[in-house]
Amino acid sequence: MERQEGLTRRDLILSAGKVVAGAAIITAGGLTLVSDAESSKGGKRPWPYTKLDPDEVAKWAYEDWYRHFCCHAVAASILSALQKKIGEPYTSIPLDAFQFGHGGVVGWGTICGTLLGAGIATGIIASHQGEKIANDVIAWYASTQLPIFKPDKPKAHIKNVSRSDSPLCHISVGRWMKKENVKFFSPPRKERCARLSADVARQTVILLNAWADGKYKPTHGSQAKTHQMPTMNNCTDCHGSNIPKLPGT
Amino acid sequence: MERQEGLTRRDLILSAGKVVAGAAIITAGGLTLVSDAESSKGGKRPWPYTKLDPDEVAKWAYEDWYRHFCCHAVAASILSALQKKIGEPYTSIPLDAFQFGHGGVVGWGTICGTLLGAGIATGIIASHQGEKIANDVIAWYASTQLPIFKPDKPKAHIKNVSRSDSPLCHISVGRWMKKENVKFFSPPRKERCARLSADVARQTVILLNAWADGKYKPTHGSQAKTHQMPTMNNCTDCHGSNIPKLPGT
Repeated sequence: MERQEGLTRRDLILSAGKVVAGAAIITAGGLTLVSDAESSKGGKRPWPYTKLDPDEVAKWAYEDWYRHFCCHAVAASILSALQKKIGEPYTSIPLDAFQFGHGGVVGWGTICGTLLGAGIATGIIASHQGEKIANDVIAWYASTQLPIFKPDKPKAHIKNVSRSDSPLCHISVGRWMKKENVKFFSPPRKERCARLSADVARQTVILLNAWADGKYKPTHGSQAKTHQMPTMNNCTDCHGSNIPKLPGT
Repeated sequence: MERQEGLTRRDLILSAGKVVAGAAIITAGGLTLVSDAESSKGGKRPWPYTKLDPDEVAKWAYEDWYRHFCCHAVAASILSALQKKIGEPYTSIPLDAFQFGHGGVVGWGTICGTLLGAGIATGIIASHQGEKIANDVIAWYASTQLPIFKPDKPKAHIKNVSRSDSPLCHISVGRWMKKENVKFFSPPRKERCARLSADVARQTVILLNAWADGKYKPTHGSQAKTHQMPTMNNCTDCHGSNIPKLPGT
């Protein structure tokens, strides 16, 4: 079984109740609150994790996209499930904090908000181990025809799937919009991003569950070390000759 | 004075002590912990904020880059200062969760980790108001010759500043590396990113302080609404004719 900081995964999961119980300490001087973040400085990270149902989380993420968009949909679908199943320390995390990731971070088209939500959730749960999971989720996203998720009651009809080849919102959604022949502010595009949120939340939970079982093995290498530069893998999308030129350039 | 959810900024700051005091409730049934995240669902967001010294935060961010890289440097320089000044609810946030943003999110070269750190910090502090601050910080970053920060004891010598024209790590650091004529894994590049972390942390605190004073007015519009698409403003970096082609493309 994979061990981390001297505790097995099973120890961590079983210790969830103890961590919550340990959050309040009565001292001679009165009531002292010791947050888990403070105690985590003493080595109690990662936080306890209990396996989640990937399909249930996916459904929640799909619905949540229509309330709070992509980044929140993925981060909150996972973290709110842990708030319900485990309680503290997860209930101390203000989930509304993570809405800002929509549209590639406040609409700037950088990293797809679903991937940012995955990074935030795995970072909060699994600390540095979460980086490896986030890395694998990004690699999976860029190489997979998405969306896969089919809602029971779709809010719009969509015809196409696409492979983004990139973690960037602008490229990922742009490639799909071109194929579907729709505008950004259209019901089909919203539906595509809601379904994509379900897909990324589901994939993240699958890897987190494997990690909880001690069976997770990172598969994607370090982008920066491999290429000696932080970079995506879709080099020719910008450095190639087949990208549409803007008028006058 | 700007009002939000029926409270003035001053009310929010003054209420900090009350919120912390309210985190533990003794009931007839024993000790019940009510997290601020839970109570925040009842409308207590944004969290209390007290003005920080932008220059002190900048110095901390610079040093922290060499420990935990860009995203953590910005998020933790601000949030750890609030952990010290305010305590809960900030001490419940596990700051190590945010290291994953380094190198444009785990080395994928997407959003500069400093900007992601700013988005996370402002989201945690200011909820939806934080989005506007993050948006303005991104616009400022892309249009400013950076780095500006000069450490008292630099860890490496650098000669150049550059204007990224983009929130992307890959483009921002690549443009500077070309000007400085250094590789990514080199002491000058590390020094540049450490100083940039100080700059972004400082700018974020300046806007947060204005917000706390009720004097913050968002200046940058919505990228997605303006362009009908999530996008950066450096269109010709990819859709232009002056970008270096890769061999064979």
